[in-house]
Amino acid sequence: MKTLNGEPLNLYKKRGIMDRSLEHVFNPQSVAVIGASEVPGKASERRTRSLLEGGYEGDVYLVNPKRSELFGRKAYPNITDVGQEVDLAMIVVAPRFLVSAVAASVKMGVKGVIIITAGMGETGEEGKKIETEILNEAAKTGVCVIGPNCSGMFSASANMNLLGVPRLEKGPISVLAQSGNVIDSLTHYARMRGLGFSKIISLGNAIGASFPDYITYLKDDSETKVIITYLEGIKDGNRLVRSVRETIKNKPIIALKVGRSAAGARAAASHTGSLAGDDLIVDAAFRQAGIVRVANIDELFDMAEVFCNCPLPQGNRVAILSEGGGDNSIAADNAEIHGMEVPVLSQETQEKIKPFLLQGMPASNPIDYGGTAEENPHMITECAKVCMESDEVDGIYITGFFGGFKDIIAPHVAELEEQTSRDLVELVKQFKKPLFVHTSFARGAIKSLDILKRASIPVMESSQRSSQCLSALMKFSINQKKIRQMKGPEARMKERPEVREVFAKARREKRANLLETESRDILERYGLSLPAAALICGVDEVSEATGKIPYPLAMKVVCPDIIHKSDAGGIKLDLKTEEQVRQAFEEIVANACKFTTRNRVMGTLISSMVADGQECIIGMIRDPQFGPVIMFGLGGIFVEVLKDVSFRVAPLADEDIGEMIKEIKGCNVLTGIRGEKPKDMDAIKSIIATLSEIAIDNPEIKEIDLNPVIVHEKCASIVDSRMILKDA
Amino acid sequence: MKTLNGEPLNLYKKRGIMDRSLEHVFNPQSVAVIGASEVPGKASERRTRSLLEGGYEGDVYLVNPKRSELFGRKAYPNITDVGQEVDLAMIVVAPRFLVSAVAASVKMGVKGVIIITAGMGETGEEGKKIETEILNEAAKTGVCVIGPNCSGMFSASANMNLLGVPRLEKGPISVLAQSGNVIDSLTHYARMRGLGFSKIISLGNAIGASFPDYITYLKDDSETKVIITYLEGIKDGNRLVRSVRETIKNKPIIALKVGRSAAGARAAASHTGSLAGDDLIVDAAFRQAGIVRVANIDELFDMAEVFCNCPLPQGNRVAILSEGGGDNSIAADNAEIHGMEVPVLSQETQEKIKPFLLQGMPASNPIDYGGTAEENPHMITECAKVCMESDEVDGIYITGFFGGFKDIIAPHVAELEEQTSRDLVELVKQFKKPLFVHTSFARGAIKSLDILKRASIPVMESSQRSSQCLSALMKFSINQKKIRQMKGPEARMKERPEVREVFAKARREKRANLLETESRDILERYGLSLPAAALICGVDEVSEATGKIPYPLAMKVVCPDIIHKSDAGGIKLDLKTEEQVRQAFEEIVANACKFTTRNRVMGTLISSMVADGQECIIGMIRDPQFGPVIMFGLGGIFVEVLKDVSFRVAPLADEDIGEMIKEIKGCNVLTGIRGEKPKDMDAIKSIIATLSEIAIDNPEIKEIDLNPVIVHEKCASIVDSRMILKDA
Repeated sequence: MKTLNGEPLNLYKKRGIMDRSLEHVFNPQSVAVIGASEVPGKASERRTRSLLEGGYEGDVYLVNPKRSELFGRKAYPNITDVGQEVDLAMIVVAPRFLVSAVAASVKMGVKGVIIITAGMGETGEEGKKIETEILNEAAKTGVCVIGPNCSGMFSASANMNLLGVPRLEKGPISVLAQSGNVIDSLTHYARMRGLGFSKIISLGNAIGASFPDYITYLKDDSETKVIITYLEGIKDGNRLVRSVRETIKNKPIIALKVGRSAAGARAAASHTGSLAGDDLIVDAAFRQAGIVRVANIDELFDMAEVFCNCPLPQGNRVAILSEGGGDNSIAADNAEIHGMEVPVLSQETQEKIKPFLLQGMPASNPIDYGGTAEENPHMITECAKVCMESDEVDGIYITGFFGGFKDIIAPHVAELEEQTSRDLVELVKQFKKPLFVHTSFARGAIKSLDILKRASIPVMESSQRSSQCLSALMKFSINQKKIRQMKGPEARMKERPEVREVFAKARREKRANLLETESRDILERYGLSLPAAALICGVDEVSEATGKIPYPLAMKVVCPDIIHKSDAGGIKLDLKTEEQVRQAFEEIVANACKFTTRNRVMGTLISSMVADGQECIIGMIRDPQFGPVIMFGLGGIFVEVLKDVSFRVAPLADEDIGEMIKEIKGCNVLTGIRGEKPKDMDAIKSIIATLSEIAIDNPEIKEIDLNPVIVHEKCASIVDSRMILKDA
Repeated sequence: MKTLNGEPLNLYKKRGIMDRSLEHVFNPQSVAVIGASEVPGKASERRTRSLLEGGYEGDVYLVNPKRSELFGRKAYPNITDVGQEVDLAMIVVAPRFLVSAVAASVKMGVKGVIIITAGMGETGEEGKKIETEILNEAAKTGVCVIGPNCSGMFSASANMNLLGVPRLEKGPISVLAQSGNVIDSLTHYARMRGLGFSKIISLGNAIGASFPDYITYLKDDSETKVIITYLEGIKDGNRLVRSVRETIKNKPIIALKVGRSAAGARAAASHTGSLAGDDLIVDAAFRQAGIVRVANIDELFDMAEVFCNCPLPQGNRVAILSEGGGDNSIAADNAEIHGMEVPVLSQETQEKIKPFLLQGMPASNPIDYGGTAEENPHMITECAKVCMESDEVDGIYITGFFGGFKDIIAPHVAELEEQTSRDLVELVKQFKKPLFVHTSFARGAIKSLDILKRASIPVMESSQRSSQCLSALMKFSINQKKIRQMKGPEARMKERPEVREVFAKARREKRANLLETESRDILERYGLSLPAAALICGVDEVSEATGKIPYPLAMKVVCPDIIHKSDAGGIKLDLKTEEQVRQAFEEIVANACKFTTRNRVMGTLISSMVADGQECIIGMIRDPQFGPVIMFGLGGIFVEVLKDVSFRVAPLADEDIGEMIKEIKGCNVLTGIRGEKPKDMDAIKSIIATLSEIAIDNPEIKEIDLNPVIVHEKCASIVDSRMILKDA
């Protein structure tokens, strides 16, 4: 059995087995450390120590053939000497001892092995060979392999710290990371912010358990509320998109994926040997999957905190409240920059707010209580309450000096501020809409702000970051709703023997490029209707062929050796008479013979000239990370000059197709500009959907290019199509 | 005399007078407070108190007709009772007393008045009338007017705090702000960060001294190193751009300008009655002027600190150094997102770095000392030194755990870290390249980091913000260099009597739209060559006209009542015979008569059809904020669908023209795609330059539209032109 990407499916990928194995890995009854050490600072010493000091209550067996005692405990020469079943083995031995250590662990009945040892697949063929042997050993009993070249794991439920970092707090955040260095940073940031973790997994080379496996496990892990992840390269991106979409239905995933820039990709590659890949596709895939993508670690944690703490809003409409027009203007700009809507409130809602504002101050949103709240902060509660009650508002953003009015005005205001905080906390509890407080006093030790913070209301000093976080919350919520309602997409591969026959013929003739007649055949078998066409193999067939297809005609060469037909003089347009067709045939064949021999020129294809319309390009490529990726763009300068294209990982749901069309900048060319009628969107969607289906059903096809597709008001014409097979 | 924008030039605008007045305003020998009060919390009480408690050493006179004593001092019924010359008067009285208070101040010889009173021009006509009267009084002796509707001023050199806020530190930052509320925020943030100010000016309605005046003063103010500004609406934007460009040669200006979004503009408008305007033009004008634009207050201060403290880099190439690939990847991504270059270092430079790295670690940039520095931080100095010495690097960015190695490894590393800090400080001093440290330990009280901070090396916790700041430093430096070298632009208006005669004729005929023959005439008088054309007024002129202009011909209606010629059936193309021309003439005239009377149809203009090329649009509008603004874009979907246009405020320097062409997304259509030859950039530049000149010379012209301009390989043809005059 093969995956969609054609990689071998091993035991680990079978649904169910992995989940059960991971449960044992995160909550083992016993742990063996193979290669345990007492030498300060060594990788195994730090991890043994963090395990022993972390409060793990199961049995721990330290294995080291050279020592009889370690950390004041008995040391075993081999795991096989333990004399008990062992649940989990962490292995930190030199590469040459690795396979036998795994074999011995398997013998002892382990459910999982965590391999810290580096110098494996990331360094070359030798390492890859060892990795294959490890997998073979592990497959014997279905052992879950974590790593190699990873930095360990933390499981709060088991008090198990195998990361070699100081004590970690328990909390609702789980981490999946592809860099030990970044795990160190993450745990350090978390300590500074008082945040805690449920699970931390260092992915390493991920030869066994991989990102989608962990994500699928964490989806139902009741101790995990938010998943944050650091990624360099992506393996099996197709399964990743699907597993993330499932997980997103339950909880948010926030990802820091590097390699956006050339230098970032360079750094990541030199670091783990991973391929950073085309960031346009990564970005599209993440959006499609519903991942919240961030650009740095501080953003990652801000997001994690907010997602752990805030109720999810229903939409992206924010009400902005402050004591002054300046703060309001800044907040409103930030809100719209980050994609939130700052709607003008209805007259009805404004009338409810106005009694709390100074005469003439705007209640339209942003709301400016200008001057009243600094002496009487209760006004803030009143305004916020109207917004909480209104179905025109999904989230509330308070900006300005809240927390500091007592310093600005008079000490007695402190008590009023504290009461306001308590009231705001109640409002959030009652109405379950997120409320953010941006204040220049955020960092101070101020009681009114502490009341908010203790109730998990975000209180931030940076207006930029607070807007960004509220916006991410809103976008995620909208995405989650969409994904929960989404039907499909259908990922099952359907057999199409008649299509396979086309491939077989090409293979027999040692062609990777399908003839246009063949690609037309495949498209038609999948239900797409193409402009009528006829193949002319010799001048004597012109008369019969032109009888079938209405003038004016276009003629294209059919020859496996010519891919770029127009560059090879292989296209003639606007032919109006049989004589012109005859002449065109001879010219095209003559031109083709400059590139190949006559017997390789199958003939020419004629079809009616297509009426004017909007040119589009619809294509499919196999991305090394994500597998089949569908591309959409408009023709001409949109693609050539502006690179205005959108991508989605196949299989596609209807929602994906709609979004990939809407996403291109030139989209309103299709919806009708300058009084032109809108183009047939359904026809485009249907072609995209069919391409997705073909991509899933036929892993043999490496590339499809429908270019141009001319979209009219009531249909779309696939004017040219090209398919290339994978290397045999 | 009139300004470029046609506004009256009053005394304040005369170069020189304003500078001298402002000197007295910032460093007065004596200050009178008219409307002084002791009632706690009142605007005048807070300001009187901040003046008295701020350490001001000149004479202070408190004026209040109802009190004989205030703050334990003698109070004067009127400023005229002081009996001494007074340098500066701060006025906080009800609007109806304002004019007489100013008049009395003028009588006492003040050099400046600061008017806090609100309810002036921002509220309507009544207020505007008072403002005019104030200006009339002040003009009598050339008194500088600050405000009204402002929140005061701070001058460190005079220990003068007229803002009514708590004690302010002295420092190198000067502030110009359009919101009192934001000045409160700024002073609060500064206190938290230990930053100090040189001058703080609340602009208010700025009826007298305005933004460009202050900027020009601060340009040569030796106590000001960086200017930060908060703006809502912009007045006299044309002068602003020019004064900022001059100031930028000496010091950076960092601006937070709100109104980017609809809601932001709404909040700003309701707050100060200012017009936020088209943000695309604001953004272009700021870029043109060399302003560093930020989006929020925390960014404003980060930038201010960095610009005060760091040496300016020579370019935008950054070297990134860290202990791990993860941190390096994140930093490299952030660097490129913010527009810095992360160049691959030359082999020669890499060889110098390699001895300090672990075997096989990358020295190409990002540089990964992976593992060596945590035990021996001296490696960081060595790598940084190579980068400092190399002319391939303009700035250095260290990321990761610096400052925390001692916690991660062992206490003895602390001392090594401190020595490294001292060495890094020396490197910055010696090589004068900026060095940024991003570390997750930035907030801790750590000696090694304190050494850096005390030496003004930025140590930041946020990788996003630190990249953004280093990038801003680099961009500013490149801009400053460019502006220092820039010749012109020539802003002097030149008289063109022959052009004025065209306007006069149109005015006499009560036309605001110039005929195409007239706009062609003006363009030609400015030296642009247009496709040969001939006017045909009647069918009997066809024969003579077609004799002069080579076929095939285009024909356009000439009629003051028809602006959109093509919509009115006023254009015929590709006419090949005299007969066709005759017929076209009659059809066009007939079509025109559906819109107007025959006597208003001047005739038709014929010219040769223009050869194929790239369509462009070049235009001029008068922006309410910035005056004459030149626009450039490509034709067709680039403008209509993608809004891909660039703007610059006239007059334009050559550099401006080059940048506005490069800035459009479709620019490479002009430089040649798909094997097409590049288009004639010089021809486009020359048309843009001429339009700028016409805009400056002829304030009567409200709008110019050259559309299309067809650019060929060796020239450009202005196919159609349209000019509209200002309302008479």
